[in-house]
Amino acid sequence: MSDTIANPPGERELRGATLCQTLHWLATGRIDSARLSRVYLDAIARTDAQLHAFVGLPQRDMAMDAARASDLRRSSAKPIGRLDGVPVAVKDNIDVAGLVTSCGLPGSGVPATRDAHVVERLRGAGALILGKTNLDEGVGACGKNPHFGDVHNPWRQGFTPGGSSAGATVAVAAGLCAAAIGSDSLGSIRIPASYCGVFALKPTPGEISTRGMWPAARRLDCIGLVARGVDDLGVLLRTLADYDAEDPRSRQRRVELALPDWEPGKLRVGVLGDLAAWGGEPGVATVFARAMATLGRELSNHRIVDFADFSIPRARRAALLLIETEMLVTYAGALANSAHQLSAAQQALLDYARGKSAADYAAADRLLDAAMLKARRLFAEVDVLVTPTTPQTAFSHEAPVPANQADFTAFANLAGCPALSLPMGITTEGLPVGLQLLGPPGSDLRLLELAEVCAAALDATPVYPVGD
Amino acid sequence: MSDTIANPPGERELRGATLCQTLHWLATGRIDSARLSRVYLDAIARTDAQLHAFVGLPQRDMAMDAARASDLRRSSAKPIGRLDGVPVAVKDNIDVAGLVTSCGLPGSGVPATRDAHVVERLRGAGALILGKTNLDEGVGACGKNPHFGDVHNPWRQGFTPGGSSAGATVAVAAGLCAAAIGSDSLGSIRIPASYCGVFALKPTPGEISTRGMWPAARRLDCIGLVARGVDDLGVLLRTLADYDAEDPRSRQRRVELALPDWEPGKLRVGVLGDLAAWGGEPGVATVFARAMATLGRELSNHRIVDFADFSIPRARRAALLLIETEMLVTYAGALANSAHQLSAAQQALLDYARGKSAADYAAADRLLDAAMLKARRLFAEVDVLVTPTTPQTAFSHEAPVPANQADFTAFANLAGCPALSLPMGITTEGLPVGLQLLGPPGSDLRLLELAEVCAAALDATPVYPVGD
Repeated sequence: MSDTIANPPGERELRGATLCQTLHWLATGRIDSARLSRVYLDAIARTDAQLHAFVGLPQRDMAMDAARASDLRRSSAKPIGRLDGVPVAVKDNIDVAGLVTSCGLPGSGVPATRDAHVVERLRGAGALILGKTNLDEGVGACGKNPHFGDVHNPWRQGFTPGGSSAGATVAVAAGLCAAAIGSDSLGSIRIPASYCGVFALKPTPGEISTRGMWPAARRLDCIGLVARGVDDLGVLLRTLADYDAEDPRSRQRRVELALPDWEPGKLRVGVLGDLAAWGGEPGVATVFARAMATLGRELSNHRIVDFADFSIPRARRAALLLIETEMLVTYAGALANSAHQLSAAQQALLDYARGKSAADYAAADRLLDAAMLKARRLFAEVDVLVTPTTPQTAFSHEAPVPANQADFTAFANLAGCPALSLPMGITTEGLPVGLQLLGPPGSDLRLLELAEVCAAALDATPVYPVGD
Repeated sequence: MSDTIANPPGERELRGATLCQTLHWLATGRIDSARLSRVYLDAIARTDAQLHAFVGLPQRDMAMDAARASDLRRSSAKPIGRLDGVPVAVKDNIDVAGLVTSCGLPGSGVPATRDAHVVERLRGAGALILGKTNLDEGVGACGKNPHFGDVHNPWRQGFTPGGSSAGATVAVAAGLCAAAIGSDSLGSIRIPASYCGVFALKPTPGEISTRGMWPAARRLDCIGLVARGVDDLGVLLRTLADYDAEDPRSRQRRVELALPDWEPGKLRVGVLGDLAAWGGEPGVATVFARAMATLGRELSNHRIVDFADFSIPRARRAALLLIETEMLVTYAGALANSAHQLSAAQQALLDYARGKSAADYAAADRLLDAAMLKARRLFAEVDVLVTPTTPQTAFSHEAPVPANQADFTAFANLAGCPALSLPMGITTEGLPVGLQLLGPPGSDLRLLELAEVCAAALDATPVYPVGD
């Protein structure tokens, strides 16, 4: 069919387009799902030996059948939902029926028998699941994986894309899908979005069900969204948010999303001060200062917030104890299979958790309660908190891993609040870094609108790196 | 002042009155707070050597000063709130500024520097804190306490009143206060209410802040209300419910209380079947069957619910692990003080928890998540669940403690739902037992209204046992 369409966009245009642009092209018939899927699948086949964004190549026939079925629906004017025919990639810690969920670990897993709730929502809106994306082995934010290959940053081969939603983010940054679904327990969707120059949202907990996502630490876990535009995040949020009786953290009367009402100049803005004290790279500080100068009008009514109040490193350690302990429970079966060994580094983390007592866990969990209350006090005083998403840009896979990668992102998981990362600019080293907006629970729509204003002012939508 | 009031109610009448009746007498000047407080204080002084409802005798002067101050406000028509001058007893695991919070444990505690949130609300409404009430040492539901004396049931000396809010409930049942505040983590307010023939409410979690209540297990903990009438529970709930930024489980948009709308015959009622299989005493089964026959019109549209689906004993064990582990954290200081030894039984419980790993804790916590989802499925099918509050009536302090004391009450803590206990009748042994109503989160007002109908139909307001 695509041959008959007049003036179709070229490969480069398709792969760089936002989800909203793609939806417009599909709706107006300038492209069809078969052509779009073929472009992505061909690009994946060409690039993935280098990028390792996917855990094994997508099942081409299955994707193409789904694409053609969607095109038939569209041509008979009966699309089943807003995302009909849109190829979406899904992080491999989220169940897709019929596929093994690896979670980045070795092991002879059995295929999932049921779609995760978020995958059900995607399919209900007509999206097609293009493939499962690679992630860190266990705990990590670098996309390092000895079993499926290290994920590489499309901006610079050999560099980390961040993680753990490494493959999902690289698939978006390198134009290998229309959008991707990841997860975020301490910053797992926002850290790679910052390192790879794309947009990511961690919604208010409970808005999108985590049923069928393998838990990292239940109180911190969220589904994460990653795309090439702010509007895309809004479309995905509205499509995927739902009450789910099977998610203990989903509530029938969940936090209602506030109307995105704010007036520039009246918005109470908190801005992270003294970046250097937090180990922020000078290059990141420069881009942040420039961005804050540019955003002066929108964020004029701002005050400096001292993150030191939040004892982030202490809370981070407590959060990691929960994550490592829950890994022992979640992957007890896989870990007992001696034929598939974890790396020594991950073994060491798990051994650490094995040595901890029930009382240690309860004490860590209480420390996270206290961190949440501190965040509540902050959001009684400011409407939005602005930070760089990460203290550093991407670094070489060979370099030592900084301990502070998640220090700005973890706050949102501790606080149970929404957070969004948008491209803030490019350092003199030529690497992107993100600007993070955080607001109180339920302020998701306001953050999206504010991010739109910021993205327009910064004009920071990065030059699209094809990566091949 | 009381001498000048015409036709004041007598001691017996005062001590047996509901809170609402007492509020009416105060408002119309038939009594004043000084007389009321003196009656309670005198009765406590006479009875507490037997009942052990209080941890030490109330500080008479302080209470009388507060009562006289309230009477001055009332006489100048300036009461500060709905409960002005009402003497309320508070369980000794809830902070009252200036008093040591014993939590039923030995130890040289320091006085609390700040009122618990619920005590702030009480004082804000004008109530006076009459004294702190006795409770189980650590984990228990019998009111056994080697440090402050075992609490006795006013219906029968030597018998357990239930627990752990033993003293609070006995103080209400024996007419030693107008109402009392306890806590409920697996049934701690409802079990003693059942054994002592009074009314108790465990509200939807988050409605009343638990800040300043020493945690048992945070995810299960609720403030519990106990009184001599259903209406009293409604007055207390409306007075004490509040958003509290300092309680991690309090939410700005908490579960909104549903209007108490239901029509008899249209209400979908689930009734616990096969009581004997749950170890229910024949005497309790007889009273329950009689109550269900009497309530036939109100509860006509009922179905039998099989509790076996809920694996209560398994969930109870998981809940106890959380409670015992959190005790290790909460009371670490007191437990380290070798001058104040716990009983051997409590030491054994804590040693059990000391031997558990972080992964054991996480696994138990997940099991409670699963129990919550099962309860959600039930409440998609029924509007109210009806059970006896306890499988047995009060028993001798010398008798072995049945393992199933909390099997009907724990469901509400696992499910995060409200539950109410009202007197259901008296067994042939002459002991009271409660009827329990449970509904989905936010159905508190409906349960209160339904309980009023049930209480009127059963005419089960027991003969008031003064206990002296």
